[in-house]
Amino acid sequence: MAGMRIPLDRRGDRAGRPPLARQIQVHIERLISQRLLAPGVKLPATRELARDLGVNRTTVALAYDELVAAGWARAHVGQGTFVADQAPAALETPRPAAPRFDWTGFLSKSAQVIAADARRRQGYSRVPRPAPGLISFAGGMPDSGLFPTDAFRRVLNRVIRDEGRELLQYYPARGYAPLREYLAGYLLRFGLEARPDEILIVNGSQQGFDLIARTLLDPGDFVAIEQPSYPRAIQVFRAFGAQLLPVPMVDGGLHAESLERLLERQSPKLVYCQPSAHNPTGLSMPAPVRQRLYEVAARHRLPVVEDGFDGTLFYGERPPAPLKALDRAGLVVYIGTFSKILFPGLRLGWIVAAPELIERLEMAKDLSDIHTSPLIQAAVYHFCRQRLLDRHQARVLREYARRRNLLLAALAERMPDGVSWTTSQGGFSLLVTLPESMDAVVVLERALAHGVAFTPGNAFFVDGGGERTLRLAFSAVPAAQIDEGVKRLAESIREARRQPERIVRDRQPAVPLV
Amino acid sequence: MAGMRIPLDRRGDRAGRPPLARQIQVHIERLISQRLLAPGVKLPATRELARDLGVNRTTVALAYDELVAAGWARAHVGQGTFVADQAPAALETPRPAAPRFDWTGFLSKSAQVIAADARRRQGYSRVPRPAPGLISFAGGMPDSGLFPTDAFRRVLNRVIRDEGRELLQYYPARGYAPLREYLAGYLLRFGLEARPDEILIVNGSQQGFDLIARTLLDPGDFVAIEQPSYPRAIQVFRAFGAQLLPVPMVDGGLHAESLERLLERQSPKLVYCQPSAHNPTGLSMPAPVRQRLYEVAARHRLPVVEDGFDGTLFYGERPPAPLKALDRAGLVVYIGTFSKILFPGLRLGWIVAAPELIERLEMAKDLSDIHTSPLIQAAVYHFCRQRLLDRHQARVLREYARRRNLLLAALAERMPDGVSWTTSQGGFSLLVTLPESMDAVVVLERALAHGVAFTPGNAFFVDGGGERTLRLAFSAVPAAQIDEGVKRLAESIREARRQPERIVRDRQPAVPLV
Repeated sequence: MAGMRIPLDRRGDRAGRPPLARQIQVHIERLISQRLLAPGVKLPATRELARDLGVNRTTVALAYDELVAAGWARAHVGQGTFVADQAPAALETPRPAAPRFDWTGFLSKSAQVIAADARRRQGYSRVPRPAPGLISFAGGMPDSGLFPTDAFRRVLNRVIRDEGRELLQYYPARGYAPLREYLAGYLLRFGLEARPDEILIVNGSQQGFDLIARTLLDPGDFVAIEQPSYPRAIQVFRAFGAQLLPVPMVDGGLHAESLERLLERQSPKLVYCQPSAHNPTGLSMPAPVRQRLYEVAARHRLPVVEDGFDGTLFYGERPPAPLKALDRAGLVVYIGTFSKILFPGLRLGWIVAAPELIERLEMAKDLSDIHTSPLIQAAVYHFCRQRLLDRHQARVLREYARRRNLLLAALAERMPDGVSWTTSQGGFSLLVTLPESMDAVVVLERALAHGVAFTPGNAFFVDGGGERTLRLAFSAVPAAQIDEGVKRLAESIREARRQPERIVRDRQPAVPLV
Repeated sequence: MAGMRIPLDRRGDRAGRPPLARQIQVHIERLISQRLLAPGVKLPATRELARDLGVNRTTVALAYDELVAAGWARAHVGQGTFVADQAPAALETPRPAAPRFDWTGFLSKSAQVIAADARRRQGYSRVPRPAPGLISFAGGMPDSGLFPTDAFRRVLNRVIRDEGRELLQYYPARGYAPLREYLAGYLLRFGLEARPDEILIVNGSQQGFDLIARTLLDPGDFVAIEQPSYPRAIQVFRAFGAQLLPVPMVDGGLHAESLERLLERQSPKLVYCQPSAHNPTGLSMPAPVRQRLYEVAARHRLPVVEDGFDGTLFYGERPPAPLKALDRAGLVVYIGTFSKILFPGLRLGWIVAAPELIERLEMAKDLSDIHTSPLIQAAVYHFCRQRLLDRHQARVLREYARRRNLLLAALAERMPDGVSWTTSQGGFSLLVTLPESMDAVVVLERALAHGVAFTPGNAFFVDGGGERTLRLAFSAVPAAQIDEGVKRLAESIREARRQPERIVRDRQPAVPLV
């Protein structure tokens, strides 16, 4: 708060101006009422402010006394004067009105696309935040109740102590070398061989999509995309001006034959898919389908963006090796993340690609934000190196498998006739399909009234479609609530079938769609 | 390392295949020699690997024994088998050759621009990393020797303990609310009034440039830019396809009259400038010039991107309030960062803009990387709230002022005739201009031979120009080395004047240009 500037009119009473103390008081009142000064903030010491403003110290003290008397501030002897926790309900003193600059005409095409997309999504799939009594299958995120927070805290504390100075300075864009070396070994578990120079550290999968899109896509380019698919990937490709060409899923993954037919008519710049732990269906592409897909892509020289989600989160049989493991030519770009198995809040992921492409992606990363926090990278590296990730993985996999099994059992028991769903083999969710002519958005409105939430499926489809589908994420729902949640959902579906009209509801804050 | 996959040919000896143990051994040797398994990595337990591969445990043990015998691994009784720290100089066994995919034809226009820019810059301003005996004025970064690492460690440790679970989960894109409230108060010190809903948290200034560019610029748009200017901002605007229109600096800042003349002929989408602590010159735009610039921009409805660098780093007179403080219409976008005053490695900065623009920038941020790590945001918030930033600020400002004064004194004493320089009023650097017809790149080659480094100034100029200039950053040079560094520089300038031809040098790893 040191160095606050308050414009003072020093002409004094004779010019009809309020005294200086009053001017200071009014200025600070306005700052508080506009929340420019937050509750609890310490005001500058009277001596300091007096010096900065070039006034007598008693003038400032007088202003502060008035602020305290009116309830705007509180004084603590020996500590100073603080903004009150509850400001008095003063008359709002809005800042002087000026013709506001209208940004609408200044937005880039990309910004316009993003906004249109956001509006469309808000129109149909705004899901409320967790609230007491609400069972939410909407999340798609790991359960923070399972986080190994304390173990991570200890590792992080140690890392700053040992390497803090280097890790808090600027750092090369490619990432913390020991983490990239660790990842080379970690990826072998999935059958994926990657040298450290084929790995770029990024801020979660999301930045992976972004860097790939800006490095490969020009406005008007086509992108082939598995349907249904991850909405945030769809949004990124669109934001870079791409036209999306959906390819249906058959047998648990993108249908290679449909892709091949599409390639006879169109020349997409890349194809995007999630062969394992597919979001939203939870399905895994069988090995022969992966092989066929890779062959089609290689034959047509079509780059493949393979979103790995998290290869360690599988239920039952282990998924086949990633497409990237088949990739002798170097046309697959693999994206991985620690957001699902560890902490989303760290924003830590990686891209595996041919070295010449990694070099380009690294330049884009360098211009985007210079580098990912090396402190976070080093902490996760040491967490992994101490086998704490392995231990955590085993623990959460058991718990997520349990929740997935409970969900499948409850669906089998409670869903009305005509409702079907995918048998999730990995990841955090599955996709439910409602009977003909039903609409998941209508069901959501009923469901919220019954205290259960989910994500309507149309978010996962390109340009409409999927209205009959909905995603249930089981990862963040306590096991004890799953059956009750499905019971409420079944009831909501029955109700929506009887009364299919929409209910108008107030908008509420939404959860991020992941 | 759990779950390593090794493809085995189980037809056995009769088919002429090596025994399984040998196949396992050869596979792991290849992984090690290709650095897919890094030195020190623990190999899977024999029991685990045997189970994963469906072979007898003794088969795996036999393979491991051979690896140890050949020096590829070392065994520690009771702990397991580890990749050796020094792999034997085995014959390189490259992966089977395949026609490599050629990415060149697949790159976006943006990627091509970025690469061309990077090549051009490498051609003239690659500056070596700090080395023993080298006095480097090249950095442009805070001195990590002054970092309050330990105080930050304690705050971070406390934050994870108290709020870890929420801070490690997904988070709203706009940022940690208490930090945005704190910033509202912090910015008042610079005379800047911003409500929390006018502030977006980003990954350092760099992501600020990126989000602004993608939200406002389409390929072919014009951007007016102060010259000289910050190279990374230049690069970002170019990467989004903008054409740059340089506007000269006069009287310590962008020349409003030149801008106005430019606006008669061209319609740039925005103007970019650094009114305080200008990088590279260290100059500060005087208040009347700020006022004129703002008036020109407002009259022409020209958005202003004001890079605040760090308003607390000034020497001598305090700089006037930012342009954003004059901005009643809401057309100034202000970028701030903690990278200069605290830690670059955290990647933490902010944008202040009109709420309707902040909303658009937030959508772009959401698609770029969802959000900035809330853990880092909360730690910095608590660090600030405990007044640790204020204390640190006072301390480093004293030290940087001392170094700046030493540099100015040494230049005055030692520079040959005809050399001039800016009197840095803020930030980390100043700009030296060499006599007519000299070239800073030639001087750099001589300087490196004498053990002193700097950044050639052409990096700060759009499309050539500035060949006679060079940037000296004093922030990361210990006070005791400054005079000696300037002495060496003076000698290098004299030498280059006598022998102006270039020396060909080996390429060395470079420092990031900030």
